Amino acid sequence: MANPPIENRRIVYAKRPEGKPTADCFRLETVPVDVPGIGQVLVRNDVLSVDPYIRMRMEAVDSYAPVMTIGELLVGRTVGQVVESHDAAFEVGDWVVGRLGWQDYSVASPKDLQKVTQGTAPLTAYLGSLGSTGITAWVGLMEFGRPKPGETVLVSAASGAVGSVVGQLARRLGCHVVGIAGGAHKCEVVKSDFHFDDCLDYKSATFDDDLRRALPRGADVYFDNVGGRITDTVLPLLNLFARVPLCGLVSQYNSVEPYRIRNYREVFNKRVTIRGFVLSDHRDLWPAATQDLMKAYADGQLHYRESIAEGLENAPAAFIDMLDGANIGKQLVRLRPAAATTTPRDAS
Amino acid sequence: MANPPIENRRIVYAKRPEGKPTADCFRLETVPVDVPGIGQVLVRNDVLSVDPYIRMRMEAVDSYAPVMTIGELLVGRTVGQVVESHDAAFEVGDWVVGRLGWQDYSVASPKDLQKVTQGTAPLTAYLGSLGSTGITAWVGLMEFGRPKPGETVLVSAASGAVGSVVGQLARRLGCHVVGIAGGAHKCEVVKSDFHFDDCLDYKSATFDDDLRRALPRGADVYFDNVGGRITDTVLPLLNLFARVPLCGLVSQYNSVEPYRIRNYREVFNKRVTIRGFVLSDHRDLWPAATQDLMKAYADGQLHYRESIAEGLENAPAAFIDMLDGANIGKQLVRLRPAAATTTPRDAS
Repeated sequence: MANPPIENRRIVYAKRPEGKPTADCFRLETVPVDVPGIGQVLVRNDVLSVDPYIRMRMEAVDSYAPVMTIGELLVGRTVGQVVESHDAAFEVGDWVVGRLGWQDYSVASPKDLQKVTQGTAPLTAYLGSLGSTGITAWVGLMEFGRPKPGETVLVSAASGAVGSVVGQLARRLGCHVVGIAGGAHKCEVVKSDFHFDDCLDYKSATFDDDLRRALPRGADVYFDNVGGRITDTVLPLLNLFARVPLCGLVSQYNSVEPYRIRNYREVFNKRVTIRGFVLSDHRDLWPAATQDLMKAYADGQLHYRESIAEGLENAPAAFIDMLDGANIGKQLVRLRPAAATTTPRDAS
Repeated sequence: MANPPIENRRIVYAKRPEGKPTADCFRLETVPVDVPGIGQVLVRNDVLSVDPYIRMRMEAVDSYAPVMTIGELLVGRTVGQVVESHDAAFEVGDWVVGRLGWQDYSVASPKDLQKVTQGTAPLTAYLGSLGSTGITAWVGLMEFGRPKPGETVLVSAASGAVGSVVGQLARRLGCHVVGIAGGAHKCEVVKSDFHFDDCLDYKSATFDDDLRRALPRGADVYFDNVGGRITDTVLPLLNLFARVPLCGLVSQYNSVEPYRIRNYREVFNKRVTIRGFVLSDHRDLWPAATQDLMKAYADGQLHYRESIAEGLENAPAAFIDMLDGANIGKQLVRLRPAAATTTPRDAS
């Protein structure tokens, strides 16, 4: 058995951002690796998921989740490999997914880990379309959007990790699916890779007119990932009894002063249901969602893309750029050079 | 049999308002009384209900209902008496409620009429707490608010026809009930007559602080009749998984430029469900609602107040003042001197 790892690199929260986060809001630390106790395992994290919701936890006051305290480890899901096990259910070499944070090594309890196997899908898919990202899309669309075949489903941040899954699930149900994304290139990807029927560029000067023209029969579901001005543009285009699963407000996370919604009266006029939701409230739906996502993937009806940054030290930049919309699909960070991850255990 | 009535006074829509409606938006006409055909009845309207939703139908573009055209009879429910019947199910002298418009006489089909009897409650109650107003309150609270005993229910326009019923139904369920109304007098009435636990005056300079103090445990249901600034004040006070039945936006009906909602992000943060609704979409719930309202009334747990204007010609002023919040409880108009309504038929 190789020597156990000694040093752990991790990224902690260093400073509250005012508006857009900057590099100095994060600090890379090197600390001793934690020692797993009885019933625990030590995981070497391989790939990290960075997600927009982190930005809300960087606020000064609690929002949908408690704020982070300065000096706290950044939260995030990883896929990694067990390098030391004190639990009978896990062996060294097992691949696991868990909320293990922005760090190289994590001590974890089995209940916080999900075993994954290579073969069915690449392991990173379990951080994205086949993991909590995909389940978020599924819960929002199926539980709160409840689209019927033939209805029109509109999706903002359509080229993003969640949005791209929403559209594909809706297409699979027989819906007409229209996306909204930032820039012509993203719109092309949404149509070519994710097979949306149409996609509109919200950065275009003609966006409002374009969207109206793209929805001659209105929208029955608006899966909202962004809030702000786009929500205001969409509200008058909703049909009677439209459903708006509200998954996030990424357009607002960096705003010091929030965008003020002008067309709220449409919620009454069209008898709309708006429903804010967070995945962690709906654990009862995870098995059904996972099963359905795996089936869609196996059927070749669930495509995904990843934007992968290299090295833990580049995670903050990847996160900052993601909030600006630099990514397509799931934003990931490979924590160490790919070659190093092929051995089950190393002594870095 | 007395001579049939010859002349019918009615109020038609004369001019679109810009902001607050003025008297010249309405015109009183005298026309021949319509002649009922086979299977129809002629009703002499006694009391008219004037309702805020009419203002939305005076817009230039369709909102939740089609706009009225200039020259069209104003819509509204009345309680009246059958003065001529060509249908076996109705006799001269029967009291009925229906959507018979702002006029003295209406020809109606039996399917559009509901027979009501004097005795259980005053007939005007069937235009208010025991009629569509009460059913609106019931549907919004029970179907979309779904309060649990011990939860806090917040109600705007609490001294109004709908709001006053909402609070009493919520109290009956064992909820803590807080109202919002305009002015100290209305707040007193909400507490003394409608038995809310508390009521805050939105016209007070300290309203925001008052409301926060009145809701130390937040609000689980916000029954919204008004929209606008009050909604913005309430959103940060909602609890996790709060429900917001959106019944109307009376603060906005006279606005040329809508109030812009600043705190929309709370809908996501608190995983709120906002649900716009209109009574006519939920006819399946009317029997259950009516039964429950009648029981609450019989149990002495449903009190109501009426603001009654005298004379059809004063209906426009009553409507205009109601939009300014002049009324307490249900706004009604008695179409002719009370004495004249005691004979089953007159020949005016």
